[in-house]
Amino acid sequence: MKNLDICLLLDFYGDLLSDTARENITLYYNEDLSLAEIAETAGITRQGVRDSIKRAEEQLIKFEEKLGLAKRFTSMQDGIQEIKIMLEDIKHDIPEHSSRVEKIISKADEILLLNRE
Amino acid sequence: MKNLDICLLLDFYGDLLSDTARENITLYYNEDLSLAEIAETAGITRQGVRDSIKRAEEQLIKFEEKLGLAKRFTSMQDGIQEIKIMLEDIKHDIPEHSSRVEKIISKADEILLLNRE
Repeated sequence: MKNLDICLLLDFYGDLLSDTARENITLYYNEDLSLAEIAETAGITRQGVRDSIKRAEEQLIKFEEKLGLAKRFTSMQDGIQEIKIMLEDIKHDIPEHSSRVEKIISKADEILLLNRE
Repeated sequence: MKNLDICLLLDFYGDLLSDTARENITLYYNEDLSLAEIAETAGITRQGVRDSIKRAEEQLIKFEEKLGLAKRFTSMQDGIQEIKIMLEDIKHDIPEHSSRVEKIISKADEILLLNRE
């Protein structure tokens, strides 16, 4: 689990959390609010927020342990990056066909963007 | 949801189902057993099995509605297939570089296999 950070897991499995839990952990990780700031908005104690985030993290990690979809995605993404590098090399070495190779590189970029919707 | 079949969703989210629900729906969809056969093994009625599978299907569809990961994967996979076709064309048209292009095609195949683990 060390290689996949909570932000990624939140992107993947956040919608399986309860509304409150998702809200707190999103404010903390994606909006970079402090525990104190979240506590004030949510009207609970700082410790309450900390516990809620901790529980949400544990749930996200458990979802990934069960499903492994973030890891699958990351591996696919890494593979597509490798393909891009190989294509850039070919584009460089065979300039007369660079526009065709360029089209495939654009397609690869499109696929990488799917991962960020 | 019409384009993504239950088998795919079972592959993605099956491990979020209860053990019994996953067992019944897997026997039905992946092992192609009949309701009667599953009922006999599970020691419950045919109607009980039918209800259990129906509930599991609904849960799987709900997971996909929330997370949309099967759709994301399928789109990535389609994109990689398109890249493969474009590469095959280039390989055909530029035979003097076919071995280099072949390497990228193999890499694309590797990525497609990640989706089936």
